[in-house]
Amino acid sequence: MAKYITDLDRAFSALADPTRRAIVSRLCDGPKSVSELSEPFEIALPSLLKHVRVLEQSGLISSEKIGRVRTCKIEPHALHATEAWIQQHISAWEQRLDRMEAHIESMKREDKDYEQPIKET
Amino acid sequence: MAKYITDLDRAFSALADPTRRAIVSRLCDGPKSVSELSEPFEIALPSLLKHVRVLEQSGLISSEKIGRVRTCKIEPHALHATEAWIQQHISAWEQRLDRMEAHIESMKREDKDYEQPIKET
Repeated sequence: MAKYITDLDRAFSALADPTRRAIVSRLCDGPKSVSELSEPFEIALPSLLKHVRVLEQSGLISSEKIGRVRTCKIEPHALHATEAWIQQHISAWEQRLDRMEAHIESMKREDKDYEQPIKET
Repeated sequence: MAKYITDLDRAFSALADPTRRAIVSRLCDGPKSVSELSEPFEIALPSLLKHVRVLEQSGLISSEKIGRVRTCKIEPHALHATEAWIQQHISAWEQRLDRMEAHIESMKREDKDYEQPIKET
């Protein structure tokens, strides 16, 4: 459980930055070298590498250096873990709304039954 | 777009803390007063209030003070926005896998056709 919490902490924290989200977006299209990744960003390479490191520590991406080229790729497991957490809570909230709706409906029905004129016999 | 990015920054950042995620979890079961919220947490009330404030600023929850009681409730829009971002990227990644799979299949078929013995006429 502790590990799960720490992983989620890191994944959500990594996703809280627009440059890191943009890196994740680009890697969803396929693995890229650090220099390919840096192309659309107007930031110095050391800054980009810091973001890459944060993303690696969060488990959202991994990288491998072959020769002089470091290639990054997405690691879907961490993305799925964040989605699972959010989805679980949206479901809990929606189930609560459904229960409330059902309760209101049943109250309306009871109210209607109460208002029915008593048939003369 | 800028607002969307800022909202996502705040929402993901707010979810990067286990106490704040636990507050969101509890509010998914229904609105709660700050003192009700504080019950399972072994932290001082001012610390809890700080977390509540961060969650409010992120748009994930809202609170209202009536008399001396501040009641917090979930605001599903921000939760849906984070889910939409993650879901969109999981889909992009899965579509890429599907394209790769289709490409490998077509290569296999081509390879098989090439290996077919030439029929004698």
